[in-house]
Amino acid sequence: MELRIGVIGTGGIGRDHIRRLTDVITGAKVTAVTDINKEIADKAAKQYHALSFPTGEDLIESPEVDAVLIASWDPTHAGYVLSCIQAGKYVLCEKPLATTARDCLKIMDAEMSYGKRLVQVGFMRRYDKDYRAMKEVIQSGRIGEPLLVHACHRNRTHITSHSNDMTVTNSGIHEIDILRWLLEEEYASAQVLTGKQNKNAAEGLQDPQILLLKTKNGVQIGIEVNMTSGYGYDIQCEIVGETGTVRLPDPSALLIRSEGKHTHQIFTEWSQRFVDAYDNELQQWVNDVKKATLSGPSAWDGYAACITADALIRSRNSGTSVPVTLQRRPEFYD
Amino acid sequence: MELRIGVIGTGGIGRDHIRRLTDVITGAKVTAVTDINKEIADKAAKQYHALSFPTGEDLIESPEVDAVLIASWDPTHAGYVLSCIQAGKYVLCEKPLATTARDCLKIMDAEMSYGKRLVQVGFMRRYDKDYRAMKEVIQSGRIGEPLLVHACHRNRTHITSHSNDMTVTNSGIHEIDILRWLLEEEYASAQVLTGKQNKNAAEGLQDPQILLLKTKNGVQIGIEVNMTSGYGYDIQCEIVGETGTVRLPDPSALLIRSEGKHTHQIFTEWSQRFVDAYDNELQQWVNDVKKATLSGPSAWDGYAACITADALIRSRNSGTSVPVTLQRRPEFYD
Amino acid sequence: MELRIGVIGTGGIGRDHIRRLTDVITGAKVTAVTDINKEIADKAAKQYHALSFPTGEDLIESPEVDAVLIASWDPTHAGYVLSCIQAGKYVLCEKPLATTARDCLKIMDAEMSYGKRLVQVGFMRRYDKDYRAMKEVIQSGRIGEPLLVHACHRNRTHITSHSNDMTVTNSGIHEIDILRWLLEEEYASAQVLTGKQNKNAAEGLQDPQILLLKTKNGVQIGIEVNMTSGYGYDIQCEIVGETGTVRLPDPSALLIRSEGKHTHQIFTEWSQRFVDAYDNELQQWVNDVKKATLSGPSAWDGYAACITADALIRSRNSGTSVPVTLQRRPEFYD
Amino acid sequence: MELRIGVIGTGGIGRDHIRRLTDVITGAKVTAVTDINKEIADKAAKQYHALSFPTGEDLIESPEVDAVLIASWDPTHAGYVLSCIQAGKYVLCEKPLATTARDCLKIMDAEMSYGKRLVQVGFMRRYDKDYRAMKEVIQSGRIGEPLLVHACHRNRTHITSHSNDMTVTNSGIHEIDILRWLLEEEYASAQVLTGKQNKNAAEGLQDPQILLLKTKNGVQIGIEVNMTSGYGYDIQCEIVGETGTVRLPDPSALLIRSEGKHTHQIFTEWSQRFVDAYDNELQQWVNDVKKATLSGPSAWDGYAACITADALIRSRNSGTSVPVTLQRRPEFYD
Repeated sequence: MELRIGVIGTGGIGRDHIRRLTDVITGAKVTAVTDINKEIADKAAKQYHALSFPTGEDLIESPEVDAVLIASWDPTHAGYVLSCIQAGKYVLCEKPLATTARDCLKIMDAEMSYGKRLVQVGFMRRYDKDYRAMKEVIQSGRIGEPLLVHACHRNRTHITSHSNDMTVTNSGIHEIDILRWLLEEEYASAQVLTGKQNKNAAEGLQDPQILLLKTKNGVQIGIEVNMTSGYGYDIQCEIVGETGTVRLPDPSALLIRSEGKHTHQIFTEWSQRFVDAYDNELQQWVNDVKKATLSGPSAWDGYAACITADALIRSRNSGTSVPVTLQRRPEFYD
Repeated sequence: MELRIGVIGTGGIGRDHIRRLTDVITGAKVTAVTDINKEIADKAAKQYHALSFPTGEDLIESPEVDAVLIASWDPTHAGYVLSCIQAGKYVLCEKPLATTARDCLKIMDAEMSYGKRLVQVGFMRRYDKDYRAMKEVIQSGRIGEPLLVHACHRNRTHITSHSNDMTVTNSGIHEIDILRWLLEEEYASAQVLTGKQNKNAAEGLQDPQILLLKTKNGVQIGIEVNMTSGYGYDIQCEIVGETGTVRLPDPSALLIRSEGKHTHQIFTEWSQRFVDAYDNELQQWVNDVKKATLSGPSAWDGYAACITADALIRSRNSGTSVPVTLQRRPEFYD
Repeated sequence: MELRIGVIGTGGIGRDHIRRLTDVITGAKVTAVTDINKEIADKAAKQYHALSFPTGEDLIESPEVDAVLIASWDPTHAGYVLSCIQAGKYVLCEKPLATTARDCLKIMDAEMSYGKRLVQVGFMRRYDKDYRAMKEVIQSGRIGEPLLVHACHRNRTHITSHSNDMTVTNSGIHEIDILRWLLEEEYASAQVLTGKQNKNAAEGLQDPQILLLKTKNGVQIGIEVNMTSGYGYDIQCEIVGETGTVRLPDPSALLIRSEGKHTHQIFTEWSQRFVDAYDNELQQWVNDVKKATLSGPSAWDGYAACITADALIRSRNSGTSVPVTLQRRPEFYD
Repeated sequence: MELRIGVIGTGGIGRDHIRRLTDVITGAKVTAVTDINKEIADKAAKQYHALSFPTGEDLIESPEVDAVLIASWDPTHAGYVLSCIQAGKYVLCEKPLATTARDCLKIMDAEMSYGKRLVQVGFMRRYDKDYRAMKEVIQSGRIGEPLLVHACHRNRTHITSHSNDMTVTNSGIHEIDILRWLLEEEYASAQVLTGKQNKNAAEGLQDPQILLLKTKNGVQIGIEVNMTSGYGYDIQCEIVGETGTVRLPDPSALLIRSEGKHTHQIFTEWSQRFVDAYDNELQQWVNDVKKATLSGPSAWDGYAACITADALIRSRNSGTSVPVTLQRRPEFYD
């Protein structure tokens, strides 16, 4: 039996997920779509032989939909997730889970009341083979206990609508989640450093930004988030342990020797870098939903990322280090 | 509508293809299996909810089977392929297409009589992203016209049943095909060099062997086929052109610094190296069959590889370079 | 005519410089030595056919000495340098120039009174071919204006006498100087971050430490100084510019494939890493002295490094960012 | 006491050696020069405060000359070397030792009659740190016994006067020597393969050429000698052993990320690649001569290289593999 999925939001990432669920993922099909722009929803519906619903709520309640994927505008995420819980349907929500910590807490409360995990957050990097291998290396003890992390998140250029906060909430958020997951602990404090601005960034945009995080055990993390690297989309991560280090490799690419140079290409678009991770994420989610047991990032993970992002933004505004204060983690999320 | 596939041969590679068609490939399902060992066929049939047929011929003729995948013992390939053509069914035959050039010709004749391409040979490397990118680089002119090829095919250890000929027909055959495909021309001559034997190879086994090929345009190719590298499964290829070179990258792997060394892992098993290529090959074949137009390696490619392998084996026995003599290529295969 | 050099301090680094001046450098010879430990001075004198002097002052004043190299205990540097200026002799002083900013200023005053540069500080990294190439890349504009620096200074293990301050004054000092030199500007502020301690470091030692510097133009610098990396001596540096980045390569080393791994060695001792830089530094200094025009790091550079190190140490003690306040740079040092 | 060296031949490489002996090497000075072109000899003499001699023989006999370096036109080498032996003076002769095997034998006879090694041949690669490390790895047994060698010798473009034979005698000769030295055995057979010609090479020039050598123990060697690689000067070497491989690294160079590419520079001129090897070679030779015991490549090595080059050239002309037949090695050269 194929899992029947309804997709809310049929813009860029939503369309890509519909294609993926149809052409790449086995055991699932997209049966329903909706979008604030009815025209593009209808177009997607037609192309993929799905139903087009006027609202997300209609889609969520439809008997043609077993599970929901949310890829709509960020501020709408929380409302749709709550509706899914109310309808008792599994939901994969693109990050962020919500735009406020209060909404994250509301979602956790609803989920706990329901009595079972229904919510997964779209932190796809956890499904990247290299990050997974990195976690295995850390856990194997080969590099000793982690002490430091050096990470870089570089886009080639930023989109027109990019804002200072989005450096944290859209880009940095992936780093916030993946490092929590790799280190298996929460953050204690957060700070943002800014300095010389890249002339190629929009006027007034603080770019690059350095995000400093420290975990409860004292692991020190420095993350360059650079929206205007100029040269490509480049994700780097090195964990420094007590006896060695482990580092993400560059994505492999042909080696060319010509004109006095040894060269390999770097991705220029984010969409090229995590193709396999997105595929793995969705396939695992479909498999998990069919087995009725989620294994991916939870509402708690969405909440922790939200709180951390808030702290970073406050630090940038205040110029000082600020504490990252999470509620006590409910046993439900252990 | 899902393509209903019958699989002949449910040993190692056959089983892996059944899993792949079921769990990874979209738009297809395995509906029938058969094996010379009835027991393992029945087991696979049960696990995958398929029918178990007593013979390959029965499977091929079954109305439950739209297309056939052959992964049985090499000497049986040609017979099954001919039956598929007779039944007018698409067939993907694992390499080699046949064990003799005469059988390859028989298959081409049958296919031409049928009037349409039905046969594809399982040279999966053509679906590897790096080889594909390499072909694009060559065609772009960035390195000028190809002059030389340096290739290595290294297994960690050989299987017990490995023979001197199998170095050419089982391992070298992949190099023979992929280089024809990259260079887009046929071979003119072939030679095998042997020298010092690896003590870790079975007694009497000539390992490593150096395969020398020259194309009709004079491109010189040297291929190390090494069944006992001792350290891993390692495929290397460098094309030297008139103004530059292009080289396959090592598969990317985490970079670890510890104990005075910078290290990354190398695959040890062949099955790890071309996972994506096999996935792409089968997905593309399924898509092509549904559109009733094959785009993968043809019976002609199987024939050319067979003739080249024969020439190499004769060279090893005679100690001299021997010509590679192909029939004129029928327009049917252009 | 060979330049006759007197060496003050014949311990580890001093002995190495004597060997270098004798066996590697052309146009110079060591004619005089001295050490607080008369015995080891006499031993070096005997081996290298030099005179052994009871005190540094005697050596400096000797007519057998054209120029002086100081490699004695840090607190003695300033005094010897002042004596050299008084004697009108060129002096290469191992870092630090002095242990206090006040002594640095005294040296600059003396040198300015003398009316000509006599003092060079032993920041040998400026003579490393890769750092030099890096500076050329920056100046070429190929990566745009520098915005960020990521640097690492990792020792395998620390010496017994290592202290928290020495992380800055002995190891970090090289980073402080080389980055000033690469970026061609002064620092505006300094901060040290500490967190989880490496269990393999001595009790009470804050290791690793993160040094944060910001230049007057706002370039943000993060330096990991790690005295107990466990795996090797490893110096890394990446400059992130407005359109690209430039990074030091790993020192080249043989590539070995064995046992499922691709490996190259990393240096374990600092003495292996900058051999050529030390050779180049001394050869250039000898050549410069003969031409009576110094081109290497000046007393001002020693002073700027000292002030910056002081600021970092104060920051570590206070837990906040502190300003780096230099006197106005005398035209004499432009 | 400085070793007084006379240099025969003050063209490109000769001038470079004079500079090196003067500015880089310790313990030696150039006291005499000569050249077939008197004018350039006088110019060099003037610049380096040396005597200019009308003939090589005059220089060799001069009491101002302790040892001789020969960097003149290839056909003159043997005569000058014989004169040096007659004069009982140490001589470093740039490769080749002689242009005929017969002259090599004559030199060995003269040297044996003299009763002591006086002759060293300028195979500088033996002084390259990476080749030396490679030899250590082989001898350590880390990769098992060597079975295969893959080597490349690539120039960016060839000089106007380049001929087919020079591919072997000028460029290939370095590979011939270094591989004998690495493997510590002699060659048994030799073959040259030619194929498609590079359009950017001069008309009629067979470029690239593949040199195949097999050692007495059966190690198989393939060497690409490519005078028109188009992209740079690139020397590669991989030794494949029974349990692993060892490979020369690319010379280290800055890593630049810009414009969608990760790039490092490749040398374009041969003179950039072996600077340190030449320095080490000459310093070691000067030290050895002073101790009156040579440790570098001997007349026997020059003879073996000459015989091998002859065999390769005969193979290219005949199109078949030819034996490499050396005289029995005199104990004198063990």
